[in-house]
Amino acid sequence: MDDLLERLRAGLPAEALISDPDVMVSYGRDMASFCDAGLPAVVALPRTVEQVQHVMRTATALRVPVVPQGARTGLSGAANASEGCIVLSLIKMDRILEISQVDRIAVVEPGVINAVLSRAVHEHGLHYPPDPSSWETCTIGGNIGTASGGLCCVKYGVTAEYVLGLDVVLADGRLLTTGRRTAKGVAGYDLTRLFVGSEGSLGIIVKAVLALKPKPPTQLVLAAEFNSTSAACDAVCAIMERGHTPSMLELMDGTTVRAVNAMANMGLPETTEALLLAAFDTPEPAADLAAVGELCRAAGATEVVPADTAAESELLLQARRISLNALETIKTATMIDDVCVPRSQLGAMLDGTAAIAQKYGLTIGVCAHAGDGNTHPVVCFDHADPDESRRARESFDEIMALGLALGGTITGEHGVGVLKKEWLARELGPVGVELQQGIKRTFDPLNILNPGKVF
Amino acid sequence: MDDLLERLRAGLPAEALISDPDVMVSYGRDMASFCDAGLPAVVALPRTVEQVQHVMRTATALRVPVVPQGARTGLSGAANASEGCIVLSLIKMDRILEISQVDRIAVVEPGVINAVLSRAVHEHGLHYPPDPSSWETCTIGGNIGTASGGLCCVKYGVTAEYVLGLDVVLADGRLLTTGRRTAKGVAGYDLTRLFVGSEGSLGIIVKAVLALKPKPPTQLVLAAEFNSTSAACDAVCAIMERGHTPSMLELMDGTTVRAVNAMANMGLPETTEALLLAAFDTPEPAADLAAVGELCRAAGATEVVPADTAAESELLLQARRISLNALETIKTATMIDDVCVPRSQLGAMLDGTAAIAQKYGLTIGVCAHAGDGNTHPVVCFDHADPDESRRARESFDEIMALGLALGGTITGEHGVGVLKKEWLARELGPVGVELQQGIKRTFDPLNILNPGKVF
Repeated sequence: MDDLLERLRAGLPAEALISDPDVMVSYGRDMASFCDAGLPAVVALPRTVEQVQHVMRTATALRVPVVPQGARTGLSGAANASEGCIVLSLIKMDRILEISQVDRIAVVEPGVINAVLSRAVHEHGLHYPPDPSSWETCTIGGNIGTASGGLCCVKYGVTAEYVLGLDVVLADGRLLTTGRRTAKGVAGYDLTRLFVGSEGSLGIIVKAVLALKPKPPTQLVLAAEFNSTSAACDAVCAIMERGHTPSMLELMDGTTVRAVNAMANMGLPETTEALLLAAFDTPEPAADLAAVGELCRAAGATEVVPADTAAESELLLQARRISLNALETIKTATMIDDVCVPRSQLGAMLDGTAAIAQKYGLTIGVCAHAGDGNTHPVVCFDHADPDESRRARESFDEIMALGLALGGTITGEHGVGVLKKEWLARELGPVGVELQQGIKRTFDPLNILNPGKVF
Repeated sequence: MDDLLERLRAGLPAEALISDPDVMVSYGRDMASFCDAGLPAVVALPRTVEQVQHVMRTATALRVPVVPQGARTGLSGAANASEGCIVLSLIKMDRILEISQVDRIAVVEPGVINAVLSRAVHEHGLHYPPDPSSWETCTIGGNIGTASGGLCCVKYGVTAEYVLGLDVVLADGRLLTTGRRTAKGVAGYDLTRLFVGSEGSLGIIVKAVLALKPKPPTQLVLAAEFNSTSAACDAVCAIMERGHTPSMLELMDGTTVRAVNAMANMGLPETTEALLLAAFDTPEPAADLAAVGELCRAAGATEVVPADTAAESELLLQARRISLNALETIKTATMIDDVCVPRSQLGAMLDGTAAIAQKYGLTIGVCAHAGDGNTHPVVCFDHADPDESRRARESFDEIMALGLALGGTITGEHGVGVLKKEWLARELGPVGVELQQGIKRTFDPLNILNPGKVF
């Protein structure tokens, strides 16, 4: 360990290395509070590609595991330190290197905060759509590593669709440039996409070329209340079936609505069983909202309220964004699931989740990126109560089993990390796991990159 | 070889196997006429997944190379038979298995023709955007294998963005299911994307889950004439810089325009040096065309003619679609390049291509997916003239070198095949090639899947 520090110091300035255990503990984990984490041997905060290469060469020479980190806002433990590892935090590499209006790209370092990039490109009339709820604090490198989603995906897709090219420091310290800065390109296998969502297990992303869109008009939001989640899901299906492309289509169940009101006094309808938020950023959003409002009424909405102004819309968005935090106040702890099903199965997924909550005697609030079929059932429990904790874990698993049975996936956007490792194997099957492990070995033969994560 | 046929017959009906050399020769090659091809030992035309598995198990047992084929409309020799191989043609597996309006997906076998799928989903109010020029004959399996593009990409992106999940028969005959039928999903590495553009070198695609879009309004096209390609490229940059999203933005140079007129008497402007075609499929395309027309005039357009009707628009589209064929009539042979550059470099790319044509004393007509920066310089030459053939090959290479120097890629949408193998290594660099070869070994340790292609 002294050898490790000494070697790292040969290529990094003193301020880029932290070895004080009291400080290091704050780099121990992401936001998946129930996943194991160890104490790192050292935290490295490089500012240059060469420094990252030095860290990886050192790690390879000494066979020390490396855990890459962004802002640690992840929800699956992928960024949790393992005992004795090097935590490689990329947050100091936070420069926006280029924004091009004609090419509609941005070139960034991995530590750039999502919201910082979003605002910077807005000034050039451009738009970087991926908007995870943590967008004010999470980093682009973390977004790429976890293939994060957000509220915009129903219209604009996920992070993966915006990553054109990457510079990656490999396990042995070599630098790989992959992908392109062109709109199209098919030269060889798509290594770029392989890194997206790889949770730091294949290499360290040190630069990214991102695709941008023209900045759309400000979106206008409509809120529709329903007496049941299944009526709300019927509305979701009708909206998509009729060919609408909302810029957002979110669902909050009654538990979530009441939790948000309790926390932030947002004045949401206290007695509703499901609140659907639909938004359009088209040239004439009011007309689109009117059409969607009709479909909601036809599906049984008890109240349909289109926001008149951007400010009202922003308030509804804010209510949705704080949903997970609000649900966390119900009990002392939560487990946040992330099951995505074909949207035609959304109603069955929500009904099934309610049945699981009842079976285990637990409160499970659900908010969902409904237009994508991506649900976040939040299991609320008292972590000091062993029996309730056990029931929480069992219900959490049963929700994933339900998702798979409905033709879905165990993770729509939060990733695998350590939280869902066993479930990944269930989803992929033995052939898939074998090939994925083969890819891992190709990139990281010594298994020093975030070992124990994903697989 | 007798053993090969005998073993294949054990798992495939007689009509699914062709071993008559006179018939087999027609399965020898795709449309890249200058790439080498051998005579297969046998052509297999399976109708079921089990039959494909039987072919691959047999190939593995006997160590016989397998060359998968769709409609052989490819332009890089990726589907060319190698001597003594099994040609595995997927054209008989041509069923559309499912179309879902709510989930906006189609599930298809690989032999479905692109146009057949496009028309089928239109009947459900849906749209499958990828539209290579060969869309009336090419197959979805071939589109996925080559990651094909088309005219729609500037707005709708490439084939890769529409492939959600795949069933793949591996080299050893095992079946892999990868990806999903949900809108989102991040469970493990993105193997699905790895198969897209892998040119049959990693596995045999036997089923695909494709994402669909709502059917857009019929597009309206505008034609703008310019005195120089660089003025037309200025217009392209201005259109993209101002935040427009045309559904098509195509460029034909003067040589191409005159070749199209000569072949099909289309009445295009005979003296123009560059014809730009811009289209919008927005709710009010006329307004968008007017704005874009203004930008064209500001960039120096000598004439701006918006089509008044869908029929006029279709005629202009048709002119663009037959461009490659028209250029083939200029001399006895052509080499079609496929360099994609950042669109800000499009003008430099076209000027540089003209200089290369002059240097080598050749006619090089260019049509381009201008909005994507994706150029197709077509080198016209007499293949009976050895010196002209040599100059053609040298200019073809020099065009790729120019593309790389301008920050581009050697292939925007046609792929590597055998045509651009050496150039792939130049673009990827040694580290990239090493990792790509590692992936190849993981999927195909015996190197029986389309050996000699890509790498």
